[in-house]
Amino acid sequence: MASIIGINLKVSIFGESHGKAIGVNIDGLPPGIKLNLGNIRYEMMRRVPARTALSTARREEDEFEIISGYFNHRTTGTPLCAIIRNQDKRSKDYERTKSLMRPSHADYTGYIKYRGHNDYRGGGHFSGRLTASLVFAGAIAKEILKEEDISIGSHIKSIGEIEDVSFDYIDLDGDILDKLNKEALPVLDQSKAKEMEELILKVKKEGDSVGGVVETAVVNLRAGIGSPIFDSLDSHLAKLIFSIPGVKGVEFGSGFSISRMLGSQANDEFYMKDGQVRTFTNHSGGIVGGISNGMPIIIRTAIKPTPSIGKRQRTIDIEKGEGAELNIKGRHDPCIVPRAVAAIEAVVAIGILDLMMEEGKWK
Amino acid sequence: MASIIGINLKVSIFGESHGKAIGVNIDGLPPGIKLNLGNIRYEMMRRVPARTALSTARREEDEFEIISGYFNHRTTGTPLCAIIRNQDKRSKDYERTKSLMRPSHADYTGYIKYRGHNDYRGGGHFSGRLTASLVFAGAIAKEILKEEDISIGSHIKSIGEIEDVSFDYIDLDGDILDKLNKEALPVLDQSKAKEMEELILKVKKEGDSVGGVVETAVVNLRAGIGSPIFDSLDSHLAKLIFSIPGVKGVEFGSGFSISRMLGSQANDEFYMKDGQVRTFTNHSGGIVGGISNGMPIIIRTAIKPTPSIGKRQRTIDIEKGEGAELNIKGRHDPCIVPRAVAAIEAVVAIGILDLMMEEGKWK
Amino acid sequence: MASIIGINLKVSIFGESHGKAIGVNIDGLPPGIKLNLGNIRYEMMRRVPARTALSTARREEDEFEIISGYFNHRTTGTPLCAIIRNQDKRSKDYERTKSLMRPSHADYTGYIKYRGHNDYRGGGHFSGRLTASLVFAGAIAKEILKEEDISIGSHIKSIGEIEDVSFDYIDLDGDILDKLNKEALPVLDQSKAKEMEELILKVKKEGDSVGGVVETAVVNLRAGIGSPIFDSLDSHLAKLIFSIPGVKGVEFGSGFSISRMLGSQANDEFYMKDGQVRTFTNHSGGIVGGISNGMPIIIRTAIKPTPSIGKRQRTIDIEKGEGAELNIKGRHDPCIVPRAVAAIEAVVAIGILDLMMEEGKWK
Amino acid sequence: MASIIGINLKVSIFGESHGKAIGVNIDGLPPGIKLNLGNIRYEMMRRVPARTALSTARREEDEFEIISGYFNHRTTGTPLCAIIRNQDKRSKDYERTKSLMRPSHADYTGYIKYRGHNDYRGGGHFSGRLTASLVFAGAIAKEILKEEDISIGSHIKSIGEIEDVSFDYIDLDGDILDKLNKEALPVLDQSKAKEMEELILKVKKEGDSVGGVVETAVVNLRAGIGSPIFDSLDSHLAKLIFSIPGVKGVEFGSGFSISRMLGSQANDEFYMKDGQVRTFTNHSGGIVGGISNGMPIIIRTAIKPTPSIGKRQRTIDIEKGEGAELNIKGRHDPCIVPRAVAAIEAVVAIGILDLMMEEGKWK
Repeated sequence: MASIIGINLKVSIFGESHGKAIGVNIDGLPPGIKLNLGNIRYEMMRRVPARTALSTARREEDEFEIISGYFNHRTTGTPLCAIIRNQDKRSKDYERTKSLMRPSHADYTGYIKYRGHNDYRGGGHFSGRLTASLVFAGAIAKEILKEEDISIGSHIKSIGEIEDVSFDYIDLDGDILDKLNKEALPVLDQSKAKEMEELILKVKKEGDSVGGVVETAVVNLRAGIGSPIFDSLDSHLAKLIFSIPGVKGVEFGSGFSISRMLGSQANDEFYMKDGQVRTFTNHSGGIVGGISNGMPIIIRTAIKPTPSIGKRQRTIDIEKGEGAELNIKGRHDPCIVPRAVAAIEAVVAIGILDLMMEEGKWK
Repeated sequence: MASIIGINLKVSIFGESHGKAIGVNIDGLPPGIKLNLGNIRYEMMRRVPARTALSTARREEDEFEIISGYFNHRTTGTPLCAIIRNQDKRSKDYERTKSLMRPSHADYTGYIKYRGHNDYRGGGHFSGRLTASLVFAGAIAKEILKEEDISIGSHIKSIGEIEDVSFDYIDLDGDILDKLNKEALPVLDQSKAKEMEELILKVKKEGDSVGGVVETAVVNLRAGIGSPIFDSLDSHLAKLIFSIPGVKGVEFGSGFSISRMLGSQANDEFYMKDGQVRTFTNHSGGIVGGISNGMPIIIRTAIKPTPSIGKRQRTIDIEKGEGAELNIKGRHDPCIVPRAVAAIEAVVAIGILDLMMEEGKWK
Repeated sequence: MASIIGINLKVSIFGESHGKAIGVNIDGLPPGIKLNLGNIRYEMMRRVPARTALSTARREEDEFEIISGYFNHRTTGTPLCAIIRNQDKRSKDYERTKSLMRPSHADYTGYIKYRGHNDYRGGGHFSGRLTASLVFAGAIAKEILKEEDISIGSHIKSIGEIEDVSFDYIDLDGDILDKLNKEALPVLDQSKAKEMEELILKVKKEGDSVGGVVETAVVNLRAGIGSPIFDSLDSHLAKLIFSIPGVKGVEFGSGFSISRMLGSQANDEFYMKDGQVRTFTNHSGGIVGGISNGMPIIIRTAIKPTPSIGKRQRTIDIEKGEGAELNIKGRHDPCIVPRAVAAIEAVVAIGILDLMMEEGKWK
Repeated sequence: MASIIGINLKVSIFGESHGKAIGVNIDGLPPGIKLNLGNIRYEMMRRVPARTALSTARREEDEFEIISGYFNHRTTGTPLCAIIRNQDKRSKDYERTKSLMRPSHADYTGYIKYRGHNDYRGGGHFSGRLTASLVFAGAIAKEILKEEDISIGSHIKSIGEIEDVSFDYIDLDGDILDKLNKEALPVLDQSKAKEMEELILKVKKEGDSVGGVVETAVVNLRAGIGSPIFDSLDSHLAKLIFSIPGVKGVEFGSGFSISRMLGSQANDEFYMKDGQVRTFTNHSGGIVGGISNGMPIIIRTAIKPTPSIGKRQRTIDIEKGEGAELNIKGRHDPCIVPRAVAAIEAVVAIGILDLMMEEGKWK
């Protein structure tokens, strides 16, 4: 009951990092959608490690095989399932230390939850690798949204203490987002990309890791998407985003900083422009009362530093029930923030398409 | 499909601020739970306005009537429905200005969503008043959790720029939380209560409003609650919390600030204490891989300043399709943060009980 | 989790036969639907007992109060909740015999399920009275379907051994169904109404009860409604119909008798008529592959004789854990079949509307 | 939203008859269940065609590959996905006639539903082949139920006009059911197997097909399983059974024939036997008020004759929008009833396990 989500569009993901394959089943896609497999592969490449020195050395090709729901280059309307075979696994790395719970990894909570029966290799079902399935589903969702001119894009708002500027919450168009989509380290202030890269290489050298914040925007989403109370746009997107490993905070519009404002500062006053309803400011991040208001959707996601670090750590041996020391081997990212971008955009696309389908699944 | 939530415990809420009543239907409660109606009334009183000068002058008694699912002072196991009649409504206040969209209220998005058919009086179904139903359901959930020694409590982390200290994330017991539950302005550093109160009175006088942050903790929740991927404890709680009107950000543990840390700082190393698995730090806020790890759950919620302010604002007249000015009359809170505390705790209690029931609905 | 149903339109019912009230919450109705309260009252009157000598002497006015989701005589689009107060309860009748499990009633299974905490008076949550909530919701669904010219109607196919003729499965129009809706004992062969009435009065006199079969039709439902695999039209309707107390069998089209045919007899061959796709026969009952094919939907529902009979029966005393004898007092129907008609039509209307909404909730 | 079912145990199926593969994803299995793959293969063999002259000549090996959720020969507790590659497809057979709608097949309704984009080859997603996925999932469910001594078995109650005797509804033990599971044409009166076989060969020779009824029993299911109103045991099982292609009727216990009884005949009176609550008769088929009462569960399912027949039929050409004639080639079953047995038992096992999990997912 845990790995399925969606109201009108049900997405279920399955698989473990070192099992035979991971995959996704998407139930509820409209029929007749022509898929651009090249675009899907591009999105999946965005989250693949080993593109640069900034990431883990594990090579994941993420070649997907569409099993069902796809006929004559179009969706059929019946469940579309795809699997991605796992390759270049070094499961032996995990065998030796399987009873040593890696701090801030899901080893311990997974062990308790599944009474020791979960596949611990490479994080198993908890692995960030599972986000490849989300990115696949999100790429399809993005294609469908693109037909309605809706764009989703992100920049890295910060890595460690290095901070990029923010999106313009008012005047933001799809071209900027599309341009960001093409970069390995998408930032608005290009000078920050270099600084971030240097920081990542530095912590990598130290066997450490670093976190960051991703700022995501959705433009051209019409007003009226999302439903009070519990299927509100922010509730639904937050649930999806918190499902991505490593996320510790989500905020919309001015987010936590709106809590410091007065109402007279925070309220987004309305005006008409060319027959369109707009607001002078966008502290709401495009969502009021859980429903889109036609302004850009603004989301910030806080990502913790990868818990996989090369440093010696104190831990416990779960089978012996006693303290232990851990020195993790293996290939790990010093910073998962750049890779998380694709996963965040994917779940945002899935969540928005899902809620939009309330207004009619078949066009 | 919007006003129902839950996996094992389904909570559906209904009603509008100025309609006949609001209410809640709770499906899936275990049978035989003895309800302490006094405790439920106390919880509901916590979110009632007009307790002090700090709140709106509207009197809401929030007298609930249990309609079903309650027999011989105990739950029956069948749906428990309760309604709360609306009283002291001044709907006329809203009639005059119904086509003037109040900035950062759900007037506009509700109008679009429901094509002008929603009940606009007092915010209708979007009103904060709906949280009374959540608090009722949450009070029952709290009682059931209390039987397992699980406590939920909060303090006001900040109002405007005035900031309280944080919870001790490691050594936190239920007594502190119970004590906080009894205060109108719960803070850890008592000197801050006075400052916050002064600030609220000041903005009230100015016809303005102010936001804040609530920090909530859950103690004695055993490890193993929550399910990867999408029914993770953080995903589930975030969805519930973002359903509360006015929430713009949610973070767990060190939240956004963890994004600035190195992995070697952020990782919560393990140790054994009296046969229990514990961590030296609790940056994770008690949740790793979407599952509780036995440490205190720490949640911070950002709440925007009430959009209802007494100042003149620019807006649009939705029927005329042109710009307009708005001068809101009516009785409003200068700060909903103290009242939001009860609502946040309620949905946290509902969410945790719901996920715990996975392990067996009937005891 | 038990008393909520629906995919796009969620209907949840609550209440017990002798509690304060029963009710229903409908989440997902389109906004702006003008409700004809007279029609709703008429539908509810159809299931009310005590209309004739054929039914129980209990008077139930079934006056409903709409609590929410209804504003200016129209649906708002937010949850529409209605409650129906319980009156003329004779709970004392049940107190004396509460530990004596009435055969083929839900006393025993309810006792086990809810560990003795369920409200046993008058069957509690299991009572046929709960169908009043379904009929209320169904009446609204019927109104919405009527706007698309879709009619639902039924006749009593049999009571005991007395059998009416069948619907014409090919040429069936809404007028016939509307006419049947107006009769207390709707039959196609009027001579059977008299015979059925006599049989019911005879078994009543003997303190016994009798069962029957209801045949329901839906006309003018367009092709394409229902989804393979599990949300198929027949699956969805069957689930709803089996939720009505006393139903023991459901069949579509030629149903059980199709199992005796050859394929060459059972297949519904196609032809074109005035540009419309039609079939020469309708053994499929308008549903193929779980999806409507544009022909009339034909459903037959088997209803058991009311288990409440005036005769002495062998049973057990659940508290003493030993055999006992039971002599039920109270006012009971000798035949619930005529009253079940309204309930069956209600859930069929709810189920069809729910599946139709997949194609767009708001029109 | 169509191909997923389940409350506590979510089963989603995907695939098309002539696509790459079909498969199933099972979310919510308890961790640590040792799977007997031999038993699973045996169950899948039961529904495989071409075992005897009685079935289609298509060879389907139904070799499954478990992709996830299975580690060290045990379930992990995370989603268990398996795929079954499609082989020996003769898709060409379907290309030539793709615009000719086969009577009583889902060609036409599928075409309308999916606007001509569904995979029409071999029935696509509507094919009976999809039940292989259900049988796989059901085999796992059966294993888990077996641990609690719960057995599920069936006999063929009738094929055409040839009728077997009925189960003994009162004294029925698992051994009889286990024995039936081993037979290709399971019947209680062995003389009927020969007659049925002769009938099937006769209609095969004539290029025709024949339907039948399957009677299924579940023994040793404890009282208390199933929830009023909509998740009742009969509602839930009926929904699942009607999802199997070709099912036109479902009844429990005495089913349609109970409608002809008097209450004094139909009521199942209670008595105590060795401290156990039992009933003298079992017209209820083990379900009262939607909840199991501890007596054997009795279900009868009506299956239509396969619509694939070798005879010339009248139909339409959907693309030309005009009448046409159809002469189906290809390999088809003259009678799918024997193969349906495995599918029915599978969904009954899934449905019962799902509802039992309400009482605690992890043991």
